Amino acid sequence: MEPAEEETAAAAVVQVDDADRLLMHKIERPVFSEAHLRSQLLHRKEKTTTLRQKLALHFQCSSQRAKAAVFSFLPILTWLPKYPVREYLFHDVVSGLSTGVVQLPQGLAYAMLAAVPPVYGLYSSFYPVLLYTFFGTSRHISIGTFAVISLMIGSVAVREVPDSYMPPTNGSNASAIFDVADRDARRVQVAVVLTTLVGIIQMILGLLRFGFVAIYLTEPLVRGFTTAAAVHVVVSQLKYLLGVKTKRFSGPLSVIFSIKAVLSDITSTNITTLILGLVCLVFLYAIKHLNERFKNKLPIPIPGEIIVVIVSTGVSYGMTLAANYKVDVVGEIPTGLLPPVAPDFSLLRTLVTDSFAIAIVGFSMGISLAKIFALKHNYSVDSNQEFIALGLCNFISSFFQTFTITCSMSRSLVQESTGGKTQIAGLLASLLVLLVIVAIGFVFEPLPQTALAAIIMVNLLGMFKQFRDIPTLWRTSKIELAIWLVTFAASVLLGLDYGLLFAIAFALLTVIYRTQSPKNAVLGQVADTGLYCEVDEYEEAVECEGIKIFHSNASIYFANSDLYVSALKEKTGVNPEHIQASRKARNKPKASSSLTCSLKRNAEEKDGETTHQVLPFNKTGGDQKNGCLTEGHGEADSEALVFRPSLGSVRFIILDWTHAGFIDSVGAKAVKQVIKEYAAVDVQVLIAGCNRSLLSELDRLQFFSEIVSPEMVFPTVHDAVLHCQHSQPNSAC
Amino acid sequence: MEPAEEETAAAAVVQVDDADRLLMHKIERPVFSEAHLRSQLLHRKEKTTTLRQKLALHFQCSSQRAKAAVFSFLPILTWLPKYPVREYLFHDVVSGLSTGVVQLPQGLAYAMLAAVPPVYGLYSSFYPVLLYTFFGTSRHISIGTFAVISLMIGSVAVREVPDSYMPPTNGSNASAIFDVADRDARRVQVAVVLTTLVGIIQMILGLLRFGFVAIYLTEPLVRGFTTAAAVHVVVSQLKYLLGVKTKRFSGPLSVIFSIKAVLSDITSTNITTLILGLVCLVFLYAIKHLNERFKNKLPIPIPGEIIVVIVSTGVSYGMTLAANYKVDVVGEIPTGLLPPVAPDFSLLRTLVTDSFAIAIVGFSMGISLAKIFALKHNYSVDSNQEFIALGLCNFISSFFQTFTITCSMSRSLVQESTGGKTQIAGLLASLLVLLVIVAIGFVFEPLPQTALAAIIMVNLLGMFKQFRDIPTLWRTSKIELAIWLVTFAASVLLGLDYGLLFAIAFALLTVIYRTQSPKNAVLGQVADTGLYCEVDEYEEAVECEGIKIFHSNASIYFANSDLYVSALKEKTGVNPEHIQASRKARNKPKASSSLTCSLKRNAEEKDGETTHQVLPFNKTGGDQKNGCLTEGHGEADSEALVFRPSLGSVRFIILDWTHAGFIDSVGAKAVKQVIKEYAAVDVQVLIAGCNRSLLSELDRLQFFSEIVSPEMVFPTVHDAVLHCQHSQPNSAC
Repeated sequence: MEPAEEETAAAAVVQVDDADRLLMHKIERPVFSEAHLRSQLLHRKEKTTTLRQKLALHFQCSSQRAKAAVFSFLPILTWLPKYPVREYLFHDVVSGLSTGVVQLPQGLAYAMLAAVPPVYGLYSSFYPVLLYTFFGTSRHISIGTFAVISLMIGSVAVREVPDSYMPPTNGSNASAIFDVADRDARRVQVAVVLTTLVGIIQMILGLLRFGFVAIYLTEPLVRGFTTAAAVHVVVSQLKYLLGVKTKRFSGPLSVIFSIKAVLSDITSTNITTLILGLVCLVFLYAIKHLNERFKNKLPIPIPGEIIVVIVSTGVSYGMTLAANYKVDVVGEIPTGLLPPVAPDFSLLRTLVTDSFAIAIVGFSMGISLAKIFALKHNYSVDSNQEFIALGLCNFISSFFQTFTITCSMSRSLVQESTGGKTQIAGLLASLLVLLVIVAIGFVFEPLPQTALAAIIMVNLLGMFKQFRDIPTLWRTSKIELAIWLVTFAASVLLGLDYGLLFAIAFALLTVIYRTQSPKNAVLGQVADTGLYCEVDEYEEAVECEGIKIFHSNASIYFANSDLYVSALKEKTGVNPEHIQASRKARNKPKASSSLTCSLKRNAEEKDGETTHQVLPFNKTGGDQKNGCLTEGHGEADSEALVFRPSLGSVRFIILDWTHAGFIDSVGAKAVKQVIKEYAAVDVQVLIAGCNRSLLSELDRLQFFSEIVSPEMVFPTVHDAVLHCQHSQPNSAC
Repeated sequence: MEPAEEETAAAAVVQVDDADRLLMHKIERPVFSEAHLRSQLLHRKEKTTTLRQKLALHFQCSSQRAKAAVFSFLPILTWLPKYPVREYLFHDVVSGLSTGVVQLPQGLAYAMLAAVPPVYGLYSSFYPVLLYTFFGTSRHISIGTFAVISLMIGSVAVREVPDSYMPPTNGSNASAIFDVADRDARRVQVAVVLTTLVGIIQMILGLLRFGFVAIYLTEPLVRGFTTAAAVHVVVSQLKYLLGVKTKRFSGPLSVIFSIKAVLSDITSTNITTLILGLVCLVFLYAIKHLNERFKNKLPIPIPGEIIVVIVSTGVSYGMTLAANYKVDVVGEIPTGLLPPVAPDFSLLRTLVTDSFAIAIVGFSMGISLAKIFALKHNYSVDSNQEFIALGLCNFISSFFQTFTITCSMSRSLVQESTGGKTQIAGLLASLLVLLVIVAIGFVFEPLPQTALAAIIMVNLLGMFKQFRDIPTLWRTSKIELAIWLVTFAASVLLGLDYGLLFAIAFALLTVIYRTQSPKNAVLGQVADTGLYCEVDEYEEAVECEGIKIFHSNASIYFANSDLYVSALKEKTGVNPEHIQASRKARNKPKASSSLTCSLKRNAEEKDGETTHQVLPFNKTGGDQKNGCLTEGHGEADSEALVFRPSLGSVRFIILDWTHAGFIDSVGAKAVKQVIKEYAAVDVQVLIAGCNRSLLSELDRLQFFSEIVSPEMVFPTVHDAVLHCQHSQPNSAC
């Protein structure tokens, strides 16, 4: 908040407060215990629908339901009949052509990431995009090839078919060129089967209504992951930019191996390639910058990528770079489409885990962008249908030799910013790609690979900006920073698939960590308000004589019940073992009974130098502190005190469970045990602020038995405090 | 609770209530908002200790600290000098001898589980037990061989050195007997290295104060795990009981393979072996039963196991069972101790993960028993020192060829019930074992293996009783039942190591699941009490006109923020998108504006047939339900209503965050977004019941900016409701 804003806010506060000050918070009612509430509150009748009725309702068939199902499966049926041609068509055409012009070079480039020949990138930019028009619910995202997914595909393809791959049928006598073609064909097979699997997984997850899985990919995780992907991509493209011929690596530590390989071979850099690549890089970066700067003035963004493709193709053709300067070019691009072929399912078994990772990442990229646009343009997307749509696009297209697609951020922004209104824009983009495939694909054969590498790298520069998250997260949340860094490090080092798994596991563990490191505090009352605050932090909070209120902001379950109990004993400074020990000691003249007291004092001193205000009890015990002096005063005194009730000491402990969401059997047992321990030394434990679902959990766990009863439970801390003060009539607060 | 008890409890309740009824809960204060509280509450001074001071304090050296460190590392120094010889010694001697008598047969038997020759079981029952006397803090647990740990060791040994193992140096020409001896020697090496590693890991974890790791092994998990271990043990012993010679399996599905192997070979059962085994089994079971039944009358439990060992050895020797009936016997037991040997660390790399699992399981078995006894006898154990003690016992002993130990439940119960007072009992037990090793070990050479199998099986019968947990858990907690079953199934099928890992991951995921499936509800006030309950469940809870109070009992973070927002929209029946849409529709005459209303009604009907009491607003709007009729009344009306403020509709939504423990940036963003969405349709969102640590998290996340300000936050729900009613003067509650 800027200082100026803050002032206004403060002014507003005063105003509101003035208005509120007239308004009194006034409650006057008997103190309720849970036992009383149980006798008073009437439960509404349970709903009487049986499981059978529910099932019947669920599987009820009606024409309306059937219609709704068809409409939700084929969203095009809902929007196309209502398509306002005059209003929308022009915008969709402009946007479609602009997107198509970006789709084309990205398709060629990302095929390199996927380790397949460029033409497959074009196929992948056509079939799925076409299909999405029918099944998709988002009007603005641009489906097609995407760097991160392509890279994941590529790393699997390279792992399954390494550079040293020998086709099983041909002997090793065949020529080197044949080997490369065979290897590429095999890699295409792997990519295609992977895509089929991804499609099947996405469809099944969508049908099972698993659209929620994307929530596990929290923002810091996704940002760390995409930054790591950018690192992978840049490293994998270095060799194309330099024109160095090195092996392609996959699996854990592949980044390091790749860099090492490129560096050790750096002397063989092809200068022409490097210069051409750098020129493209600088040009694209400048265009990107211009597009961002003059966003509002340009009718459509300058299509830098297609310019780079056309110009560099022209230069390459004109100067015959491939022959004269040994610049690597795209090479053969067959014209026309391929007939559908069933994928080679013999590869299936080794690819299942990879395809799960790719399916989830692809979906979550898609849905997060779709949601952003839906929010902006005020419509809604159905995450389950999106899952099914992506799955269908991948599944059906894979029969036509495509690799996995999802939506790409950069392209979607082009589609939206050039005024795209509906899925028609995507349709037109795909038709533009089709035109290239069937008519002029061969034109791009002299296109240098270094230009494609430049396109890929510039597209990912945005992701490197995400490093700026680090200082921001440092300030706002250390835990989220940890998620970011762990995700990044794991994804860079272990590879994107294992890295993602590791990152998700880590992110979930942070939740456990949060419940395990709750904030524990002793509360005191803010005079005459019925509000209770941490005595360590607020000067107004005053502890009541003889009552300790222990607050914790986490649920109590197996992983933190021990910590809860020990924090309780430490923070309140009342340890039943020590009291027990000191009582025993009183009966044995030799042992030192001041142990308890000194231990308690130590516990107190740990809390810092803050002196807690304890209001004088009964005007005589003013110098007693937590009843410690009475409890174990020294040997002579304690003998006399054995039978005197120690009134000044802590008689009640109130457990504030206002912030406990759930409890399990281990937690319930631990609490019950500690209640018993305290009861043995005449300290009564009360529980305050439980919500009703926690209470019914406690009932199920048979918590209320033996010495624990519902009249020890109070709806608010204030009720519990009043009850204590009533049972201990002389105390004040 | 029994009916009779219930009545007494009820009577007590009435009494307490009568007493309490005199006591009034009375609060009269202005309504506070967070903005006001911030201006009023004074923070205590921050503690000014810097990191350097803290470090200095932490690493301060003084003679007292050094002494304390030595005492905590060598607990024997604290208790031995004070040892009351006359009081304790007799009890310790009786207990020590009784324990030693159990230690002996268990050592021989569990060595079979660990896949090493029996004499190593005797070594493992001596060295570590002796060492624990010096380092251990628990006075009652009996350290030594333990079935589950021995089995884990055994499965690793068999995996590394399978039955088909061929020693690398000797060719395959060597005779079969030599091979078996070689194989066993190699298995001993594996077990010993594993033990060294376990010791090192336990020591390091103990020094790093990781004593808390045991908390992740929640009770249902441990019980499911030990039941699965019992299944493994019984299956592995079947072949000894039947005298069938089959391979020993390890790894996933080994249980199934083992059963299959035994069944397919069942025809070769050795009848003598089977009969002898069954007799031992029945005898041991009867003794166990007697011991339990006459627990209080018997001075020491009948040592059934040693009787079985002695008698069956005698029978075997007398009838020369090994030669005449081909009964498998223990075989050679060398007399005397072995000189210390450094473990063969070349095996280290493959064993690290296994040793982690064994270290953790061993420690948690030990600490849980130690805690039970400490609680019973009123002393305390130091879990970190226990970790170090176990580690030292394992590490040092492993140089003398032992396998991993921990404490055994059955033996510890013997030690405690026969009156053991201190670690002296364990010391004496170990000396008894020493006596056998150096003097009369060879006596046990004719002991049939089937008798040992019977000893192992009977010891584990208790664990099968844990199947009774299933119906109990079904009643108390479905989630804990799921943990039990998953742990059991995973540990049986995947093996104990992977099973344990899987089970821990599953147990932690259940915590995530709990936070993801919170109980959401709309609250209403119980008249004149300031208390708010679920309107769906309690008849007294009355909603305030124009105010919806949404309650959820979980923290809001990345994995549930989406669910929180959608639950909010569904439960309150106020969906900003629909309101927005219906408002737009009003301006377009053709579209149907009754959409919102019907959608809302649907949402309402889903809640069941319960009709929520909404008090009449202003005496005229009595038939309005959630303002739905006013909001979208039909086409004709809505046109007229466009500019009329919809007073009867929901104007305020109060988010009850009383039970939210923490929030992360994703959660904060989602809530902020929903506040904005509601603001766009003139519904104000207030937040109530945040604790102060949650508020400071919100501050760090810059939640209070733009349209969200601290004056929208109230310390209690009642404050927020009063504020709403004040801003909307005509409403009643």
